Amino acid sequence: MPITQRQCANALRVLAIDAIEKAKSGHPGAPLGMADMAESLWRRHFKHNPANPSWPDRDRFVLSNGHASMLHYALLHLTGYALPIAEIENFRQWQSRTPGHPEAGLTPGVDMTTGPLGQGIASAAGMALAERMLAARFNTPEHAIVNHYTWVFCGDGCLMEGVSHEACSLAGIWRLGKLIVLYDSNGISIDGRVDAWYSEDVRSRFTAYGWQVLGPVDGHEAAALDTAIDEAKSDASRPSLIVCKTHIGFGSPKADSEKCHGSPLGGSAAQAAREALAWHEPPFVIPDDIYRAWDARAAGAAAEKKWQTAFAAYRRDCPALADEFSRRVAGDLPADWPVLAQGLLREMRAHAQDAATRAASRTVLEYLAPRLPELVGGAADLSDSVGTRTASSRHFEPVSGLGNYIFYGVREFGMGAVMNGLALHGGFVPYAGTFLAFSDQAKNAVRLAALMGLRLVWVFTHDSIGVGEDGPTHQPVEQLSSLRATPGLLLWRPCDITETAVAWQCALESRHAPTCLSLSRQALPFHTRDDAQVAAIARGGYVLRDCGGAPDIILVATGSEVSLAAAAAERLEALGHRARVVSMPCTELFDAQDSAYRESVLPDACRARLAVEAAAPDFWRKYVGLDGAVCGMSTFGASAPAARLWEHFGFSVDHLLDMALDMLKKQSLNI
Amino acid sequence: MPITQRQCANALRVLAIDAIEKAKSGHPGAPLGMADMAESLWRRHFKHNPANPSWPDRDRFVLSNGHASMLHYALLHLTGYALPIAEIENFRQWQSRTPGHPEAGLTPGVDMTTGPLGQGIASAAGMALAERMLAARFNTPEHAIVNHYTWVFCGDGCLMEGVSHEACSLAGIWRLGKLIVLYDSNGISIDGRVDAWYSEDVRSRFTAYGWQVLGPVDGHEAAALDTAIDEAKSDASRPSLIVCKTHIGFGSPKADSEKCHGSPLGGSAAQAAREALAWHEPPFVIPDDIYRAWDARAAGAAAEKKWQTAFAAYRRDCPALADEFSRRVAGDLPADWPVLAQGLLREMRAHAQDAATRAASRTVLEYLAPRLPELVGGAADLSDSVGTRTASSRHFEPVSGLGNYIFYGVREFGMGAVMNGLALHGGFVPYAGTFLAFSDQAKNAVRLAALMGLRLVWVFTHDSIGVGEDGPTHQPVEQLSSLRATPGLLLWRPCDITETAVAWQCALESRHAPTCLSLSRQALPFHTRDDAQVAAIARGGYVLRDCGGAPDIILVATGSEVSLAAAAAERLEALGHRARVVSMPCTELFDAQDSAYRESVLPDACRARLAVEAAAPDFWRKYVGLDGAVCGMSTFGASAPAARLWEHFGFSVDHLLDMALDMLKKQSLNI
Repeated sequence: MPITQRQCANALRVLAIDAIEKAKSGHPGAPLGMADMAESLWRRHFKHNPANPSWPDRDRFVLSNGHASMLHYALLHLTGYALPIAEIENFRQWQSRTPGHPEAGLTPGVDMTTGPLGQGIASAAGMALAERMLAARFNTPEHAIVNHYTWVFCGDGCLMEGVSHEACSLAGIWRLGKLIVLYDSNGISIDGRVDAWYSEDVRSRFTAYGWQVLGPVDGHEAAALDTAIDEAKSDASRPSLIVCKTHIGFGSPKADSEKCHGSPLGGSAAQAAREALAWHEPPFVIPDDIYRAWDARAAGAAAEKKWQTAFAAYRRDCPALADEFSRRVAGDLPADWPVLAQGLLREMRAHAQDAATRAASRTVLEYLAPRLPELVGGAADLSDSVGTRTASSRHFEPVSGLGNYIFYGVREFGMGAVMNGLALHGGFVPYAGTFLAFSDQAKNAVRLAALMGLRLVWVFTHDSIGVGEDGPTHQPVEQLSSLRATPGLLLWRPCDITETAVAWQCALESRHAPTCLSLSRQALPFHTRDDAQVAAIARGGYVLRDCGGAPDIILVATGSEVSLAAAAAERLEALGHRARVVSMPCTELFDAQDSAYRESVLPDACRARLAVEAAAPDFWRKYVGLDGAVCGMSTFGASAPAARLWEHFGFSVDHLLDMALDMLKKQSLNI
Repeated sequence: MPITQRQCANALRVLAIDAIEKAKSGHPGAPLGMADMAESLWRRHFKHNPANPSWPDRDRFVLSNGHASMLHYALLHLTGYALPIAEIENFRQWQSRTPGHPEAGLTPGVDMTTGPLGQGIASAAGMALAERMLAARFNTPEHAIVNHYTWVFCGDGCLMEGVSHEACSLAGIWRLGKLIVLYDSNGISIDGRVDAWYSEDVRSRFTAYGWQVLGPVDGHEAAALDTAIDEAKSDASRPSLIVCKTHIGFGSPKADSEKCHGSPLGGSAAQAAREALAWHEPPFVIPDDIYRAWDARAAGAAAEKKWQTAFAAYRRDCPALADEFSRRVAGDLPADWPVLAQGLLREMRAHAQDAATRAASRTVLEYLAPRLPELVGGAADLSDSVGTRTASSRHFEPVSGLGNYIFYGVREFGMGAVMNGLALHGGFVPYAGTFLAFSDQAKNAVRLAALMGLRLVWVFTHDSIGVGEDGPTHQPVEQLSSLRATPGLLLWRPCDITETAVAWQCALESRHAPTCLSLSRQALPFHTRDDAQVAAIARGGYVLRDCGGAPDIILVATGSEVSLAAAAAERLEALGHRARVVSMPCTELFDAQDSAYRESVLPDACRARLAVEAAAPDFWRKYVGLDGAVCGMSTFGASAPAARLWEHFGFSVDHLLDMALDMLKKQSLNI
């Protein structure tokens, strides 16, 4: 008797049940509910090769409701990925490849780390955008080497989150016809039946965004799902949302209840579910015929082989394009990058003039953008303010798919999620800008980029009270601390165009970590440096202005406060104190230097240290300790011309001098 | 000749032009575009009394596109608020009452601080919810003492932001018929014509949310606006969106262009606008007849007097209700609060047992909720996980308007904005919960609460790797640093039920600052304390376990790590070291103590200090300095059972002991 589709789906269900029971932790409801959707998509529509999860033209799959992770692991296991049953048995255990929520880079076949709801569907829009832009760039009339779908499973929770609104609105505008979302509409979220907090007409909402909306279909009927998926694929100019009506916890006694959402079914309910599903194998045992029915290895290898053959023909006909494509999807910078980077630094150092670092960053981009076609820029409706649009920026045009610049509108979070998707897909290094104060709105997307180790660049400008009249809502205070406390990302706050150029260079060379640039609205003085100093910028912190002999006092500063520190040092020198100035544009890189270098910059013996940064001060105690002092912002800012604010909040040479002398006096009294 | 509506609107326009020109800074486009909308609303529909901006039953007005601030200041000035022309001339200057973006508490008549787009409309939903809930609680068949509208002006940018989606979806579910939004649809945002990044069908989207959608009307035609506003008011069961088609920069040569959005028109364009508007007065001069046409003082005083008369009748008929209403809107805690608070502490100390602090918080709420009717709770679809729902929680029911608990769905940012609105309106102390990792999503609403000084409580649970199997997406690392760096808020990370009770007490007594609670998922040991120690909790940091004599070493810890520090101290004592343990649940309050108290807890002479907190470590250098040590999380967490994670990441007594001994050894070598 042939294996039925339902039996295949039930194999997913029992693996989820078994793994969650064994782990005594997990979310059975969603895997049980979505198993038939997964069976339909993965057995009859999904293009992939289990032997090569990095095949550039594979379909992408994003489990936006990441708590259903066991569904994905079961799919990967059954279709033949390098995820043996031992990993399923090790679900949610230390160093397993089957963590509680899917983690890109850890599990073969997982294209994105999900868990925070809504971001999966939002980043999937970025993946589909990447596909569209790569296809437009690299396909030829004879060769379609980029041609794949981006599939998303999402739940009610994802569509409640605002980020889904932001990104789905953009996906509609961008006409991403190859983005297909299967929406698991089960009417249950953690607090119970959703009617009391989620009664919007989702179909109308997505139609309003310019999507094709299909269904509702019975999410447990393979034929209906297949038909809807075919229909979704047939519309090439609109993304598709397939509304799948399902039963959370399908097959279990806790079906249709929030009680099966977030904890194991428990022994008796698990057993009852096995019986209801007519499943008679012991835990973690899948019959061979079901393995065979799921096995995607042969078909996957054939599919990739077909593509490899096509790509060989493409390489023959269009060798330059093929090389460029290979480079782009490998994530390599151009072969002549070292020369380009040297040229960048040389040219930027020649801009020996005062400028806002947001303007300096734009000057850097004017150099980089035409030389690095993988750069895809954008802004959250602040293109000129943040300096992300250059002379070589071409607005992404949905019909042609061409362009290297995205107008994201006022959607910081969606922009971040889309950037994550572009970077995850491969072929692009995204960068985009907004005001530093509004990094708040995008924060969890920045966090996910750091967690996934994605190369992308956030251009955060207007980075202090230097914003002036726009006032405290627009003046960041705590954002630098927040970003620096986030593991795995690099925050640069350069003080002039030379440091800005190095920041960009390091950002692009940072293959596995995102970068945030913190840039000034206002003009800053240019600093002259010798070659050794320029080379030291990439160490994150270095001596910008030294004194003869061991310093009596060290002033540490970043960005717009560096020149202030230098001026204060000059005054201190005039008073007979040996004052050193350390510019510390990237604390993460400074911390990564060996102890000898760090000691050479900040000698332990010198405890008279004054940190200056127009932001929350506590972070700087890390460098100045209990005996040092910090000139920072311990309150919100205010609305007034910037010069007035600098004076009021103590960012003046006189005030720094007072602080320094006070500290020196206290320390000498202690001795 | 009578003054025309257009002339009145033009008075708003020229004041905006004049103030922005003088300040050489500001956003003329939106005030010029929305002046006719403002004329219609404020001259014929808006219920207010310029002499008393605190009148509880006034209509609320939220300028969601806060960059149009000059429109609002012009309205306040012309209608007769205490905002003289000198303040208009001082627009955006130091200590003026006319800052760049509207700031609640600074300018009479400004009900909310706006600027970050989308949050105004979202918090307005909270204000309208407050009105609905107060009306249901306090009105009687004979007396309608709560009966006002919440009006919003918003622009395209507000509706691009995801938070507008979250809150407007909720407003539809809640049937907030007295929430009326005038949407300034001018088709221009900072990057230009919006078609390329904002082409969704806004009407369908809001209809999908359950709103009444009116228009598009000509936003420069008073009659059309008046009709739409009347129609909006006539639907009591749905919020209304009035789509007003306008010309940004109306009347100026830069109309319909993004060029008039964010900088002064400039002398010649300003002059041309004055001519086009047929305005012949010098800058800042408004003819008397126009002042008279705008003057709302007499009508406002009459309106409030009518209400005061009605309230006097209410007080006569329902004295207890009237007293309670007065107390609630004044923001006073019940008269017997000191007794209640003592009872709380006594009862909670009696719960001398191990418990997760999220459970402890729920136990506290079980005590408080029935005693404080102003508490309105909720959660972002995690009610039982975060412990915000108590036995006395009643789900808000839109038809009756009754209830004290909100199911916000998976909408952290929208939840935060709605809480801000509830607190701004008055009559409520909102609290709500989600996981600490997802405080990211709500961050800018938390920031605005701090900036506005609102009393509300965030219940952030699952506050470390103690989350265990759910993995790094759900394990906060940087969030505590981020919140502590935010000025004006109190972050509490209590270690047991006694500290949790004090945290809640302080939160409720904190009239002008929001509180964030950081609570554990896992059970924590109960600590016994003497009365003096209990009294010291409210100082934010105190000696929980002391040694005889001056300490050799001080361990500072919070929340779930306090018991670990205590155990390590015991081991250190056994080895002959005098070890003190400081519990530091609220660093902001500790920092606010006098230096003698701080010295008594953390004597300067003792530099062997070890801070322990399962979060980003750098913040703690503030207390341990360069010579101390921090046991923290400098990477993301992982998915595994929590016990395995604690061990791996170094949160074990053995590891703390090693760190402590290592530090003591280094310091003794230095001496």
